[in-house]
Amino acid sequence: MNKKFLSLSLLFFICQGIFAQSIIGFKPGNAGAQLELEAQFESRLKAENLDNWMKRLSAEPHWVGTEYGKKNAEWMADQFRSWGYDTQIETYHILFPYPKVRELELLSPEAYRAKLTAVPVDGDPYTAQGEALLPSYNAFSTDGEVEAELVFVNYGIPQDYEELEKLGIDVKGKIVIAKYYGSWRGIKPKLAAEKGAIGCIIYSDPEDDGYVRGDVYPEGAFKNKTGVQRGSVMDMPLYPGDVLTPGYAAKKDAKRLDRKDAPTITKIPVLPISYEDALPLLSALKGPVAPDSWKGGLPITYHVGPGPARVRIKLEFDWNITPAYNVIAKLKGSTYPDQWVMRGNHHDAWVHGANDPVSGMVAVMEEARVIGELAKQGKRPKRTIVYAAWDAEEPGLIGSTEWVEDHEKELQAKLVAYINTDSNGRGFFGAGGSHTLQAMVTEVAEAVKDPQTGVSIKERRIARQLTGGGNDRFELSALGSGSDYTPFIQHAGIASLNIGFGGENAGGEYHTIYDTYPHYTRFKDPGFAYGVALANTAGRIVLRMANADVLPFEFKQWHSTVAGYLDEVMKETESMRKAVERHNGLVEKKSFALAADPLENVAPPKKKKEIPFLDFSPLQNSLSKLGKRIEELESLNPESLPVEKQKALNAALQGTEQVLTDLSGLPRRPWFRHQLYAPGFYTGYGVKTLPGVREAIEQENWEEAQEEIVKLSETFDKMEKQVSTLISLSR
Amino acid sequence: MNKKFLSLSLLFFICQGIFAQSIIGFKPGNAGAQLELEAQFESRLKAENLDNWMKRLSAEPHWVGTEYGKKNAEWMADQFRSWGYDTQIETYHILFPYPKVRELELLSPEAYRAKLTAVPVDGDPYTAQGEALLPSYNAFSTDGEVEAELVFVNYGIPQDYEELEKLGIDVKGKIVIAKYYGSWRGIKPKLAAEKGAIGCIIYSDPEDDGYVRGDVYPEGAFKNKTGVQRGSVMDMPLYPGDVLTPGYAAKKDAKRLDRKDAPTITKIPVLPISYEDALPLLSALKGPVAPDSWKGGLPITYHVGPGPARVRIKLEFDWNITPAYNVIAKLKGSTYPDQWVMRGNHHDAWVHGANDPVSGMVAVMEEARVIGELAKQGKRPKRTIVYAAWDAEEPGLIGSTEWVEDHEKELQAKLVAYINTDSNGRGFFGAGGSHTLQAMVTEVAEAVKDPQTGVSIKERRIARQLTGGGNDRFELSALGSGSDYTPFIQHAGIASLNIGFGGENAGGEYHTIYDTYPHYTRFKDPGFAYGVALANTAGRIVLRMANADVLPFEFKQWHSTVAGYLDEVMKETESMRKAVERHNGLVEKKSFALAADPLENVAPPKKKKEIPFLDFSPLQNSLSKLGKRIEELESLNPESLPVEKQKALNAALQGTEQVLTDLSGLPRRPWFRHQLYAPGFYTGYGVKTLPGVREAIEQENWEEAQEEIVKLSETFDKMEKQVSTLISLSR
Repeated sequence: MNKKFLSLSLLFFICQGIFAQSIIGFKPGNAGAQLELEAQFESRLKAENLDNWMKRLSAEPHWVGTEYGKKNAEWMADQFRSWGYDTQIETYHILFPYPKVRELELLSPEAYRAKLTAVPVDGDPYTAQGEALLPSYNAFSTDGEVEAELVFVNYGIPQDYEELEKLGIDVKGKIVIAKYYGSWRGIKPKLAAEKGAIGCIIYSDPEDDGYVRGDVYPEGAFKNKTGVQRGSVMDMPLYPGDVLTPGYAAKKDAKRLDRKDAPTITKIPVLPISYEDALPLLSALKGPVAPDSWKGGLPITYHVGPGPARVRIKLEFDWNITPAYNVIAKLKGSTYPDQWVMRGNHHDAWVHGANDPVSGMVAVMEEARVIGELAKQGKRPKRTIVYAAWDAEEPGLIGSTEWVEDHEKELQAKLVAYINTDSNGRGFFGAGGSHTLQAMVTEVAEAVKDPQTGVSIKERRIARQLTGGGNDRFELSALGSGSDYTPFIQHAGIASLNIGFGGENAGGEYHTIYDTYPHYTRFKDPGFAYGVALANTAGRIVLRMANADVLPFEFKQWHSTVAGYLDEVMKETESMRKAVERHNGLVEKKSFALAADPLENVAPPKKKKEIPFLDFSPLQNSLSKLGKRIEELESLNPESLPVEKQKALNAALQGTEQVLTDLSGLPRRPWFRHQLYAPGFYTGYGVKTLPGVREAIEQENWEEAQEEIVKLSETFDKMEKQVSTLISLSR
Repeated sequence: MNKKFLSLSLLFFICQGIFAQSIIGFKPGNAGAQLELEAQFESRLKAENLDNWMKRLSAEPHWVGTEYGKKNAEWMADQFRSWGYDTQIETYHILFPYPKVRELELLSPEAYRAKLTAVPVDGDPYTAQGEALLPSYNAFSTDGEVEAELVFVNYGIPQDYEELEKLGIDVKGKIVIAKYYGSWRGIKPKLAAEKGAIGCIIYSDPEDDGYVRGDVYPEGAFKNKTGVQRGSVMDMPLYPGDVLTPGYAAKKDAKRLDRKDAPTITKIPVLPISYEDALPLLSALKGPVAPDSWKGGLPITYHVGPGPARVRIKLEFDWNITPAYNVIAKLKGSTYPDQWVMRGNHHDAWVHGANDPVSGMVAVMEEARVIGELAKQGKRPKRTIVYAAWDAEEPGLIGSTEWVEDHEKELQAKLVAYINTDSNGRGFFGAGGSHTLQAMVTEVAEAVKDPQTGVSIKERRIARQLTGGGNDRFELSALGSGSDYTPFIQHAGIASLNIGFGGENAGGEYHTIYDTYPHYTRFKDPGFAYGVALANTAGRIVLRMANADVLPFEFKQWHSTVAGYLDEVMKETESMRKAVERHNGLVEKKSFALAADPLENVAPPKKKKEIPFLDFSPLQNSLSKLGKRIEELESLNPESLPVEKQKALNAALQGTEQVLTDLSGLPRRPWFRHQLYAPGFYTGYGVKTLPGVREAIEQENWEEAQEEIVKLSETFDKMEKQVSTLISLSR
């Protein structure tokens, strides 16, 4: 066969493939070129860059304020510059506590002094860096020395305290010991303090990420008995970022709160420990045997206490103002220089952070490198692309939050979307974010191939949903908190995404000295195939947002998602009502008293307050009207309008997510302004959708619930107006 | 106030209370006298008798064939005689294996020799009887010496082997190690052998009845690291009783099978061990990490294997023909001497058996004592009451089975009902049995007061159901197997009950050397209040069955229960069909292959055979017709008929349960004749209702399922004829 004919037919089939496709936001004639650009982008991604850069960035511990952290920032800035980016290091001056005294003792019935130190392991020299490793602690624990009886509180979340109440156990004046997991860690001391505890210990139970899950490091990926998870415990659901400068940037000369007035520092001392250190403490508890669901994987009978175990905690920190270095790299857009697409990952770690954050950071860099290279070859994006490497994410999203607070007005005027990553590994594609971007992300997920199976990353993820008993729809999850998208979406109202791969990368290294290059390359993403897949996915998202004729926001999927949330909240209210009715009926019949074991001597539950009927109709009416307007909008084809008309439309689209925010914020936490998505006040990471309404209902604050229903319906009405504007600009 | 007036008013209120009630089976005029008799019965029950007798019966180990077992039988016979019973010891000669050689070694990667011995504990001298204690073993394991790689099979039940197949692991030629629980223990070696394993180890995981559940003995009630559960592993779902004389009595001169031909002896050697002995074995396994639901409470990563752990088991038994002594005590009835009400509990234990069986046995004795006393005072029951203390229950329901096989014709002609108990403790009333007795048991449960709360035992049980999320109906469970009711109901077709109290008596002593008087009186039923409650409940049931004008069988509740079983089987078939359809759809889409972790290298599941539609209409039609006849029957009031007419009706009622049996038995196990209730072929204890139909469906044997549907509908047609007879006799 003629070689020329072969390549011609090949070209034909390729072109057919490309032109047969349409992409949201692109006029038919431009879609092919975009896909061709993306194909070029993909073909230039190199796994070995990710590998080399991970080795470089994770060679030494680099938490905020370290010499190596600064070196990393400067080195990354140099890289971005070399790829053609206009790059700055933007520095903020933030409060960061370093542990000076860490003591934990079991005083009685036997004496035990906690080791608080993870051991080096064979085959991983990084774990043997001794003094250079950051001691294990919880950042933004208050200083203090406390001594009291111990109480085991399971995960230390609200339902655990309900269980304790049933058992007749009060934590007032006690020190609690809680397992990691079940909530964001900062919830545990917050709730413990609210309940009157005077100290809080958090430990990693082997059931959650130790030997129960799998072999422990270095034999396997999971936590050995000495590993300790570090982490921030600041009250982030109130506000993240620098604790002394709420809502504004922590510049050198900023006015600062007194540390004693900072509301996000914990009220009680908190210390994280290993399961080796937890074992003597838990073994020394008596009192009721823990409920079945509380029991972990240690070879003991879990008792709740209080006591007879008596413990002492002493913690002191150096509370220093520390510089945090954000690397900000810009590539100016050709057509819309004042519309920005932003892409970020943090660069600070707790220790070496090969997985968290470096695995995500190196994918970001590789995207930036190739996009810069393409720009040099004339393929400059239409919109300005901004790459960020955030500092001080670990202590509380501080680098990104200060930067967003610093640049809020400019971002609200220019930023089209923020795309975040934070760690990555082998497995399945996962994405959360603004549901106006669901259609676009779905198309990208159809375009990217899974490195292990060769099908699209969307198809593989759907396969997993189906075999797990789920449905076959590709959906974005809603964003709670836990990474740098929070200031963008929840404070500034910028459409945001958070994406990554995982599910075949389980381990117990998170925030320990074992999150190292050897661990990562053995257990998380050998060969960096998923690092490249992440660069490919995020890069295509960035390029589509940057080059789209009309910004690829889609509102029908958004609307049906939001309608689903409303349905959920209504059903939840209804099932709360039924549960209370049933409960009160059983109290009346004395069923609890009769079913209880008299030898356990526990008071039976009391009647609960009845759940009133709420008027959800304002939300139903507003959403219904809005739905009709959206139908109208989505029937139009603005991709084919003249560019000048598109510019006006794009300008309007850019600010649409902000319509969903309210400057007064959520009740008791004005920093959080988004009316659809927020981290739960008592979950921390876990999202609460329609948070004003939902949390009022969950807290049984019925007056507030009704007020929030009205407020949210007004948000939907504002959105209807916005959609009307978009309609008029789309014609 | 005048004293005479006081007692008169008291009498008035008491009488009002009594006469206001009606009892099923009694004409209104007789109900009061019966309740008065029961009140007298109750008032004479003495907890101290139970206490003293438990001390006596559980003083030394007394498994079948021991000197102390024989002494117990003789002593009990003397007691029954002294209470006025015509008492015999009926002896059978049964095969009983005693362990001669028990060896278990881990050969590699490290050497470990299992201790196979539980240790004495402080405060319990019974546990220090050394040589007198029966070595831990599984009765009716075959002799043998095997050596192979080890595989962990979770509970060793069918779904566990499905999971192993998914993991690509075959047990052929291996030795399996299974946890206790999840099924009757005999299922584990049976299934292992069917799958090709050559040996079986069964251990008690601390999650199931060790430290995970609560503090261990002697501090608490649960299993310490050395405790071993003994128990029979004969293939009881095939037939229980003497392995050499299936279906007929093991008299001294009976013709016996050759031991090598006995189908209920296991095919492979089986040995039970403690978790102390299991730990080195399980720790030495590699291969895939066990599925989450398989993981137990040991402080290790549970791996499945096979190997590298290599183990050797050597077992030899003395296979002796041993005498089993059943104590049978009769109190002749005044009106219906040839209608018998029978009440039994076994007396043999594995070791001391304070709980199992003595706690039930002493309640039986106290009932018998008081009923005998009342008879001496002229309150002789109308029907003959027969008390039984069975021997050799533990090795396989042998004493009762041989006795029923011996007396089958007489029992089928005379026995009205058999009421079984087997162990007892603090807590909630539970009852299983023939659903024709549900109405009567409900009334008794309303009459007996719970010792801890003062409400009726029915009310307390309903309270527990309700607070556990259940309904408020008092229902008998269906009987599977596990105690001496099995030959009565499932072989001879005698209406039966099995009752007891429990739920606040948890522990890990079952079949270990720790089931002793100190353990029982500390943890199971301090003060024997529930022993007395059991005597009170069972005694009232016996007295009502014995004195009823018309035998208290009720068919409406029976019918709705059976209709519920049919509905369940039909729904189960439907959901099997849907599951297979969904599964096959996912196989076609390659979803399993795509969702699987390629590094685990496991073959994705294949398509399953489709589930055909079965014709359930013969059952629906028969049950519907039967339901109408039952409506008619239950509208009549035979309690007021003349006694001669009642005698004919009672004679017909006596044999009614037999109508539900079929002499051809269940497929492949003709010994089991009941068409409504049977132990599952692969559950052992767990009941399968409508077993012919249900098990054929579960085994996907569609031809047999359709045959069994027809056969069962014929049973229902026979029942309709029987109900017609009852109707004509009730007029």
